[in-house]
Formats: sequence, C-alpha cells, structure tokens
Amino acid sequence: MKIAIIGSGHIGAGLGRAWAKRGHAVVFGARDPANAELVALCAAIGATAAPVASAVRDAAVVALAVPAPALAEVVAAAGDLAGAIVIDCTNAVERGMALTYGHTTSAAEELQRRIPRARVVKSFNAQGAGNLADPIYAGVAATNFYCGDDADAKAIVHGLIEDVGFEPVDAGPLASARLLEPLMIVWVTAAQALGTRDLAFKLLRR
Amino acid sequence: MKIAIIGSGHIGAGLGRAWAKRGHAVVFGARDPANAELVALCAAIGATAAPVASAVRDAAVVALAVPAPALAEVVAAAGDLAGAIVIDCTNAVERGMALTYGHTTSAAEELQRRIPRARVVKSFNAQGAGNLADPIYAGVAATNFYCGDDADAKAIVHGLIEDVGFEPVDAGPLASARLLEPLMIVWVTAAQALGTRDLAFKLLRR
Repeated sequence: MKIAIIGSGHIGAGLGRAWAKRGHAVVFGARDPANAELVALCAAIGATAAPVASAVRDAAVVALAVPAPALAEVVAAAGDLAGAIVIDCTNAVERGMALTYGHTTSAAEELQRRIPRARVVKSFNAQGAGNLADPIYAGVAATNFYCGDDADAKAIVHGLIEDVGFEPVDAGPLASARLLEPLMIVWVTAAQALGTRDLAFKLLRR
Repeated sequence: MKIAIIGSGHIGAGLGRAWAKRGHAVVFGARDPANAELVALCAAIGATAAPVASAVRDAAVVALAVPAPALAEVVAAAGDLAGAIVIDCTNAVERGMALTYGHTTSAAEELQRRIPRARVVKSFNAQGAGNLADPIYAGVAATNFYCGDDADAKAIVHGLIEDVGFEPVDAGPLASARLLEPLMIVWVTAAQALGTRDLAFKLLRR
C-alpha cells in the first residue's frame, strides 16, 4: 500500500519505519525533500521523499504527523485529498496544555464552582463498577486517574484509590477533568464494540 | 477516616465495600436511608446510612456517586461542604454519549471540515514516539485508539495500527476525537509526574 507521511519528526519517522518494515511503500512529503536528515532516514528504512503535493498523489493513506500549526500549509500543499484516508496524528495544544478545540470546561469544574469552599477531586468516573470489586487484571492493577486543585485533598484521594486496589495516577489540576471525563465514553464505546464490561485502563510503564 | 458516599448504586456500593474493608467509617447519604436494599448493603459491609445532610457532617471525604442530573439536589441537601474533600465520580453525559460540559469539537473534526472529500481517521496522537518503535510493554501490546466516520478507512487504519505492533481499539465516529485528543495530555501530564516517557495506554481485559 502506498502511504504518504507528511512530517518526518519522531512520530512521522517512527510510523515510516514500522510501515516500511511491513512492506508498505512509504513516501515522506516534505517542504524540502532533499533535506540531509530526511534523505538519510529514507535510505535507512527504504522509503522515499517528495514534495507534499507529489507525495500524496495516488497515496491510499496520508498520515499527517506535523505540528498542528503547520496543518494549514500542509493542506494547502496537499489539495483536497479526495478519497484519501487521512490519519490525523496531530495534537492541537495551546500553552498550558489546553486543547485548542472544543474543551472549555468540565462537570467537575462546574461542581467546584457550585461549592467553592469544598475541595473537589475528580476520580473513579472512567470505568465500570465491576472494577471496584476487582481492579486487578491478570496480576496487573488497573489505573485510576485523579485530578484536583488541592494538594492535601489529592494526597488523601490517592490513598483512597490505593485502598480500592487501583494504581493511582495524578493527572494534574481540576481542569484535567476535561481530559478524564472523556475517558468514560472511550470506556463505554470500547465496551460496546468489544461486547464486554470487563475493561479497564492501564498506564503501562517499561 | 469518615467517608460519606452519596449514592449506593453500583459505583457507590463498590466504593463503600472497598473502603469499609480497609477500615474506613463509611456512611451512605441517601434520600431514604431506610430503603431495604441500602439497609442490606450496610449490614453486609459494615456501613451506615443517613440523610445526605447528616451523612456529610464531619465527613473528611464526600464521594458523589449519583447520576449527574441528581447533583443539584444532592448539593442543595449537602450544603457548601466547606473544607470537605469531594470526590466527583459522576459523568455528565447527554444522549448519544456527548459530554454535557465543554466538549464541542476537536482538531480532527476541524480538519475534516477543511478537507470534506477526504476520510479522516484520528489515531497515533496519544503517546510518545518511543512507542512506535516498541509498543510492547513486558509482553503486553499497548492500545492505540482510533476513530473516524468511514468504515472502510477505519478498517485499513486498524491494520496499519497492527502493523506498528499496537492493539487497535475502535473508539467510534470522528467526533470521538474529542475523547482521544485529551488522552495525549493525560499522557504528557503522567510523563511529567512520573519522570518517564516510557508510558503507554492499555485497555485491559479479563
């Protein structure tokens, strides 16, 4: 399969390496295809490089692995990509780790606004209740993320998560509830797709 | 530690069971503390039940495990909970699995709008590049979620995710990018908190 990868940074190069190894015809689309680093990468993994417009021509799949601010330029160069499968690997993030699009508040923040003198911590929202009875999957403790603005409150909740048997992972300030609340829907969607509620998130470490 | 749990459904009961077992004084706050099912639960796990206002009095921790639409009533009954650690376990979700608060679009949807004739699939955004070279953690393939609106495109991307060595999990339509884009920031936050980029998400199954 001909795959065009726009961007040859860590993500683009990593995808190119993996896909070339599996026999796909990888072509990197670049502003400067003669760039020495890119040429060396292509030689190393058996890929080619071309200007964006030519790289995407006849590509079944186009992977966008550029910084989000570069997308406008890439799309202008690539054209409308009619029919192409476009894999969006980008992350549009503002300073302070805020997502550029569509995430402006969360249920936990709204709750904190209603009870400003309490110390709200978001947790235990992103899994089925079955995990509360048994959060250990084949010897691996499922991860339970939490977030909040009060360090003392978070330390206590950390312990309470351990008490249930989960591995607690601190996901930052209460505004991170914008990140954790979506997890539940990922969980529900996966449960429906896989036909089981025996599912839990884990943050794997080497 | 005195812990008040508001709500004795699956999540509330599950938390109560785990915390009571660890020696915490668990009291369920309920509209009707004499409810037979709740009384039986309390007897089984060594907890007590009380009206919400009385349950939260002197509680170090208040866990809210009620359906989101019930929050207004619970907060009215509980008062301002000054100083209390409030664990928000709720999920505010509208029909069609849309989050009630703060999630209105995503970078992937904006991209699709710019190239309407292409078939955008979101994926590979929620981990460090190191995982592309080696997505296997102690024998366990890390999960790579993907979402999109075109079934054929998704099937192909599913295969490309396997080609990299990940376990692919279908997270639904392109609007699910609102759920997957936040994952990256969870990943970055955890990487900073834990001091390692050797991290990956896994959807555990029994």
